[in-house]
Amino acid sequence: STSFHITLLPGDGIGPEIMDVAVAVLKRVGQQMKLAFEFTSAPIGGAAIDATGTPLPESTLETCRRSDAVLLAAIGGYQWDNLPRHLRPETGLLGLRAGLGLFANLRPATILPQLAGASSLKPEIVAGVDIMVVRELTGGIYFGQPRGIFEAEDGTLRGVNSMTYSAAEVDRIGRVAFETAQKRSKRLCSVDKANVLEVSQLWRDRLNALAPDYPEVDLTHLYVDNAAMQLVRCPTQFDTIVTGNLFGDILSDIAAMLTGSIGMLPSASLGASGPGLFEPVHGSAPDIAGQDKANPLAQVLSAAMMLRYGLNQPEAAHRIEQAVLQVLDRGYRTGDILGEGTQAVGCQAMGQALIDAL
Amino acid sequence: STSFHITLLPGDGIGPEIMDVAVAVLKRVGQQMKLAFEFTSAPIGGAAIDATGTPLPESTLETCRRSDAVLLAAIGGYQWDNLPRHLRPETGLLGLRAGLGLFANLRPATILPQLAGASSLKPEIVAGVDIMVVRELTGGIYFGQPRGIFEAEDGTLRGVNSMTYSAAEVDRIGRVAFETAQKRSKRLCSVDKANVLEVSQLWRDRLNALAPDYPEVDLTHLYVDNAAMQLVRCPTQFDTIVTGNLFGDILSDIAAMLTGSIGMLPSASLGASGPGLFEPVHGSAPDIAGQDKANPLAQVLSAAMMLRYGLNQPEAAHRIEQAVLQVLDRGYRTGDILGEGTQAVGCQAMGQALIDAL
Ligand SMILES: CC(C)[C@H](C(=O)O)[C@@H](O)C(=O)O
Ligand SMILES: CC(C)[C@H](C(=O)O)[C@@H](O)C(=O)O
Repeated sequence: STSFHITLLPGDGIGPEIMDVAVAVLKRVGQQMKLAFEFTSAPIGGAAIDATGTPLPESTLETCRRSDAVLLAAIGGYQWDNLPRHLRPETGLLGLRAGLGLFANLRPATILPQLAGASSLKPEIVAGVDIMVVRELTGGIYFGQPRGIFEAEDGTLRGVNSMTYSAAEVDRIGRVAFETAQKRSKRLCSVDKANVLEVSQLWRDRLNALAPDYPEVDLTHLYVDNAAMQLVRCPTQFDTIVTGNLFGDILSDIAAMLTGSIGMLPSASLGASGPGLFEPVHGSAPDIAGQDKANPLAQVLSAAMMLRYGLNQPEAAHRIEQAVLQVLDRGYRTGDILGEGTQAVGCQAMGQALIDAL
Repeated sequence: STSFHITLLPGDGIGPEIMDVAVAVLKRVGQQMKLAFEFTSAPIGGAAIDATGTPLPESTLETCRRSDAVLLAAIGGYQWDNLPRHLRPETGLLGLRAGLGLFANLRPATILPQLAGASSLKPEIVAGVDIMVVRELTGGIYFGQPRGIFEAEDGTLRGVNSMTYSAAEVDRIGRVAFETAQKRSKRLCSVDKANVLEVSQLWRDRLNALAPDYPEVDLTHLYVDNAAMQLVRCPTQFDTIVTGNLFGDILSDIAAMLTGSIGMLPSASLGASGPGLFEPVHGSAPDIAGQDKANPLAQVLSAAMMLRYGLNQPEAAHRIEQAVLQVLDRGYRTGDILGEGTQAVGCQAMGQALIDAL
């Protein structure tokens, strides 16, 4: 039987409880498909700050590096919000992305027919939405230098961050995006602000320069303000979107919210080699943590993405995705996606329903 | 009678035809209210590039400076998109904002009951939306140095832009925002990315430091990704939003698109002193230019904003706004806002209907 080392990063808030469900599902699918998973848990985010004084202990990064894939739940909570930046949960996540070289973030936003009513948009506008946002994740303004709050000689303060991309960084994410689009409907929309920013001009030029290598893919460009607007106006015009770190942060959240069920959406972060990181799009929801109310389905679908993109086990991934559809078809819903004629269940009961469906 | 010098910048695409309607409306209201307007037209954008070789001729900026208010229609078009940056229409607009010191951009997004159906969002989600986005307009990454595409010694290219704000710049726009919120429902939401960016941390710190001066205003903070999401999920939670140049570009367009009728939305850009700039949120729509199809109502409402915010003539502004509501009540619609049971009219006919309503 094939064997995989998986690092589990349950993190904060609802993280541990949804992680438990995903692990149970992985174990079950592993038995069925003769895949052996060896799980190692490690602290990150607020939990790591409390335990070790830092949001990303070196030992956690090492454990991740030595594994075949990393499954993360969620980080953050009010009690860590006012710590200095280097001690904040988010800083741990950014360090993990950089430390594992995870430059390509894939964020699918799809509307399941079972949950179509959950969107704040009209059903006819969102029916059939199936968008993949390819976000650059280790460059741009998130990591650019110089950065900081600087005091001038006259005592005045100035905040500075640098949005910077090298041609090589753009090419690298650009190729992932073209390849992603090629496997989908072959439409790739690159989003930038090239009418104002030079860094975007370089981005656009490089994307255009890559295009001849992917003759089947239809490449278009939109300015970020227009792209945000178009996502709201008519999301079905999009298939694959590629953009930088900051614009991707915003646009992938808009795309996610179009579905109305952000508790359902997984994501994958991949590097050139080494383990990928798989995590739900939603946050740590500290207000409902520990109450068995959380929706574990995005976490479970993140485990499926891990099987598909990180461990090359598409059949096992497919099984999990089918199980999710089945529990929805059977009417089970956590509070966040409750609808008329459906049955409210808690996090654990949803997990049990998944095991039953498998 | 009171007399005002107005600079008209018709610009490109549908600009001239919608400007004609706004001028006719201003003249009519001027007669009624005993306000004398002296209009001077000047070239900007693509039209200025074609006529003078530059998107913002010095004479245009001078004319604007010497006037009491500037009414702009729209700039840009495909034929100027591939010119070098300093020769692009957008560069003229940015130069105008900087040249007039227009640091405060006010972008209202309201849903008129007459046009509620136009939104891509469910009617119950957008009913009553009334948001004012206060966007910083002369700082941030739009103007920060260093900027450019730089070649390293090994020949590799790197694009760089700098997102930078001084404490004074934040305070200045922050005060406008608090004052705006105070005149509205007293809820102010500041949007930043303080969990990642130092420039946002300074932004947030300064906003918090201003808050005690406005004890009636309830100040909250959101990260930009979450704000974009919340605008889509439940826009009525927002009243006044304040944010930087780039985030404001994106969020104000989302807010505008929530209404589904971007052809209806005006904006104002104000400085510490000197003339303000008033313009529709929509673009120059080159594909329908010169065909008498354009919706002139955002331009007309921009003229109303000019009267209210730029010339301190709230009664005249109110008259224009009432006339717009009246023509909508009478069922007149341009193609972009056509609905069942309404009557299609062209740009000129809509102008005539406004004159009749006045
Ligand atoms: C928590 C935060 C640092 C992070 C980001 O901005 O990348 C989050 O918003 C995300 O999108 O994963
Ligand atoms: C045309 C462009 C430079 C401009 C901007 O980005 O500010 C526009 O999008 C706007 O919002 O007024």
